[in-house]
Amino acid sequence: MNRRRRVYEGKAKILYEGPEPGTLVQHFKDDATAFNKKKHAQIEGKGVLNNRISEHIFQHLNEIGVPTHFIRRLNMREQLIREVEIIPLEVVVRNVAAGSLSQRLGIDEGTQLPRSIIEFYYKNDELDDPMVAEEHITAFGWASPQEIDDIMSLALRVNDFLTGLFLGAGIRLVDFKIEFGRLYEGDMMRIVLADEISPDSCRLWDIQSGDKLDKDRFRRDMGGLVEAYQEVARRLGIMVGNEPNVPRGPVLVQ
Amino acid sequence: MNRRRRVYEGKAKILYEGPEPGTLVQHFKDDATAFNKKKHAQIEGKGVLNNRISEHIFQHLNEIGVPTHFIRRLNMREQLIREVEIIPLEVVVRNVAAGSLSQRLGIDEGTQLPRSIIEFYYKNDELDDPMVAEEHITAFGWASPQEIDDIMSLALRVNDFLTGLFLGAGIRLVDFKIEFGRLYEGDMMRIVLADEISPDSCRLWDIQSGDKLDKDRFRRDMGGLVEAYQEVARRLGIMVGNEPNVPRGPVLVQ
Repeated sequence: MNRRRRVYEGKAKILYEGPEPGTLVQHFKDDATAFNKKKHAQIEGKGVLNNRISEHIFQHLNEIGVPTHFIRRLNMREQLIREVEIIPLEVVVRNVAAGSLSQRLGIDEGTQLPRSIIEFYYKNDELDDPMVAEEHITAFGWASPQEIDDIMSLALRVNDFLTGLFLGAGIRLVDFKIEFGRLYEGDMMRIVLADEISPDSCRLWDIQSGDKLDKDRFRRDMGGLVEAYQEVARRLGIMVGNEPNVPRGPVLVQ
Repeated sequence: MNRRRRVYEGKAKILYEGPEPGTLVQHFKDDATAFNKKKHAQIEGKGVLNNRISEHIFQHLNEIGVPTHFIRRLNMREQLIREVEIIPLEVVVRNVAAGSLSQRLGIDEGTQLPRSIIEFYYKNDELDDPMVAEEHITAFGWASPQEIDDIMSLALRVNDFLTGLFLGAGIRLVDFKIEFGRLYEGDMMRIVLADEISPDSCRLWDIQSGDKLDKDRFRRDMGGLVEAYQEVARRLGIMVGNEPNVPRGPVLVQ
């Protein structure tokens, strides 16, 4: 499998050339990074869990008509996706104040926001992914005003769906980061959801206890990352333990 | 004059109660601050120059139909203005990359931007005036979407006018910061330009030499601040030297 041409390697995923033109294979690594790679670790089993959780979410989004790059899961660590031209923006949707928003605007973590807020960050590691506004995005041609409109309405649909999905699992969706791409089909181009949605890219708090079930456990050295991701998978009804090739180790522990 | 009720004191200006209801007196101090007051100095003559330069600009903006809070200059350091409810945003219009935009987005100072970019910063000294997007402004109720539209179109008109005005004086308008307020007249409310426009709030580069004729001379310890402001006033045809009460000192030197 590793003889395939590697198209891109990121912090937590690798993209390989797919079996047909216009497809790619998205491979989930066990690497965890934070603060723009200043912190880095290998967390056994994380890639397997994120592959399954992201599959679950993208499949349902496709079903409700939110277009995504996701085609199907191939194996424990890989999924088949459509090749898209990634828009160089991290789109963050926030329902509750946390992280950089709390710091920047001086709002206590956990404060419900008056309404959901969409933020854009320019994907550029050298610049530490600076926050940008629509003005910068359109001036520098990263996306057109029409594309920003499409992205914002898709982001709000994803937020509606995810808020409900996690609420049903006793989890508060605090915020999440998504990415979008341009999918070219013949003469047509449309904006689709790309990348992944997993506890790596969401803030998820247990509704009862307030416990963090997401990558903040790694960012803040709280430990128990894989156990938290497993708990998210379990509550979403994803049977990671039934995988034939699941690794022995913490992934199986419940 | 100093027995009047002080309504507000900022870094470079004081607002006093005006002679009639709905008016205020805006007093220009000689204080120069930068980096959120971390740097502070008294620069003799600066207040007099900014009062005159800002008068010149606001008067012309009123004439071309850009509504402002400015009524008339009262004396060397003071002008009569309408009382407005200040919107807590610093509105920055940029034509050329410089300062924080250059740092944040990794664009060399002096690079012409693909088009003018409008940025918003939340006016809050404790938080160091963080950059915000329309999403934050509307979510937290600092301004409505309609008010943001009004602010952006007024900001672009001000930019058109100022670009031309300074170009005519051999000066490149790199960027500037403006503020807006809500003016209540009976049942009506409208957005008007408030605060000041001066070399304290603009980046102005001599077209020939590239010399800085603005507050960056203070921020970057270049000296010659009053001389630069005087040069701006002189090129705009403002006769500060003819003031009856002009202080003896650098203000008169040409």
